[in-house]
Amino acid sequence: MEIPVVRNVLEANDKLAMVVHERVRGILTLNLISSPGAGKTSLLERTLTDLASEFRMAVIEGDLQTDNDARRVAATGCQAVQIDTDGGCHLDSNMVLKAMEHLDMSNLDILFIENVGNLVCPTEFDLGEDAKIGILSVTEGDDKPEKYPLLFNLSKAMILNKVDLLPYVRFDVERASQFARRLNKDLPIFQVSATSGEGMDAWYDWLRNAVRAKKEKGSL
Amino acid sequence: MEIPVVRNVLEANDKLAMVVHERVRGILTLNLISSPGAGKTSLLERTLTDLASEFRMAVIEGDLQTDNDARRVAATGCQAVQIDTDGGCHLDSNMVLKAMEHLDMSNLDILFIENVGNLVCPTEFDLGEDAKIGILSVTEGDDKPEKYPLLFNLSKAMILNKVDLLPYVRFDVERASQFARRLNKDLPIFQVSATSGEGMDAWYDWLRNAVRAKKEKGSL
Repeated sequence: MEIPVVRNVLEANDKLAMVVHERVRGILTLNLISSPGAGKTSLLERTLTDLASEFRMAVIEGDLQTDNDARRVAATGCQAVQIDTDGGCHLDSNMVLKAMEHLDMSNLDILFIENVGNLVCPTEFDLGEDAKIGILSVTEGDDKPEKYPLLFNLSKAMILNKVDLLPYVRFDVERASQFARRLNKDLPIFQVSATSGEGMDAWYDWLRNAVRAKKEKGSL
Repeated sequence: MEIPVVRNVLEANDKLAMVVHERVRGILTLNLISSPGAGKTSLLERTLTDLASEFRMAVIEGDLQTDNDARRVAATGCQAVQIDTDGGCHLDSNMVLKAMEHLDMSNLDILFIENVGNLVCPTEFDLGEDAKIGILSVTEGDDKPEKYPLLFNLSKAMILNKVDLLPYVRFDVERASQFARRLNKDLPIFQVSATSGEGMDAWYDWLRNAVRAKKEKGSL
C-alpha cells in the first residue's frame, strides 16, 4: 500500500513541475541540492553579489525552520522568498508555485531554488527546474558521490565547495570526481570556495552559457 | 490522504520499535544521526578502538548504497552489519530487527546504530534506541541546531565534531550550544575531534555512565 501512495505524490508533483516549467520560460531555473552546511547560501550570496550588474536574479529559499537564509540572500539586494516546510525534508512543485506568487518574475534571467539541506529526498522531486546542481563540500568526505548516487547522477553540474579547507582535511578531489563521473560521464565539476572566491569564475561562465542556452533554445 | 498514510507508517514503525527495545534489554542502544559527512563513522572507529577492552560493542550501519562504512567499522574488530536502504532516506525498526538477526547479541554492552546521513527524516523514526545522539560538525555552520530543531530537541547528547577545524571556519561554539540548549535545556555537548582524538574522554565517560544506567535501571 505504501508504494502506490508515494507514486501518487510524485505524480502530482510532476504535473505541477510542468506548470512551474511553463512559468519559467526564458528564465534559467536551478535547483541547488546539498547536505546541510555544504555552503549553498554562501555560494548564492557571492554569486548574486558578483553577477548583480550582469543578470536579474531571484531566489526561493527552502528550510524546515527560520527565514535566516532568505534574509542573508535579500541582503545582497536580490529578490528572495522563503518557503518554510515546517519540518518537511524537501521542496515540492506546489511550494515553488506558491513562492513564485511573491516574486516579480518579469525580466528575470536566473531563478535559484535553494532546496532543504538533505542529500536524499530533494533529489526525487522535480521542481520544474532546468538543472539540479549538486553541491558537495570537501569537509564531507570524498566518498559522498558514491554513497548518494542519485543526486550526482541527475545533476547537470557539481560544485565542490570549501576547497580552501583542503589542506586540513582528508579529501581526494580526484577520487570524488571519479565517483561522480562514473555516474554522470561529462559532469562539469567546479572546485570553488564561496568564502575566498577561489574558482568562482568557471562557475560564472557555466551560468552565462546556461542563461544563453535557456533564452535561445528553451533548455540547457 | 497523505497524512493518514504517513501516520500508519509511523505507527507500524513504533510497534516494531517496541520489539527492538525488548531485544536490547541490558544493552545500551544508541541511534547516531547527522548530516552526510559529519563524521559518524570516524567517531565510531575511534570509540570502538579506544573502548575495545572495556565493552563488547556491535554496530548496525545504515546507508543508501555501499557497505564501505560497515567494512571500516569491522576493521576495528567489532561486529558490524550493513543495512542498504536502496535509496531510502532513513532507517526504520523493521530494518533494524532484520539486521539484529545477523549479530550475536549475547553479552553485548553497547549497540550503535549509525543512521543514514540526513538531519531530517531519521529523527522521526524511533528505532527502539535508548538515546538519539545528534552529531554536528563545525564545518556545517553554527545555525544548524536552530534550522534542524527536532533532532537537537530529541537527542540525549550532542557531539560537536571536527573541532580541530575551528581555526579555519566561521563557527561560534557558544552560539550553536545556545541554540541547542534552548531546545533541550540540559543537553550534554561534547566538543571532539574524531580525527585527532581531542575531547573524546568526556564522551567515553558519558558512555560509561549510560551503560551502567541501562544495566541497572533499564534506561538512561
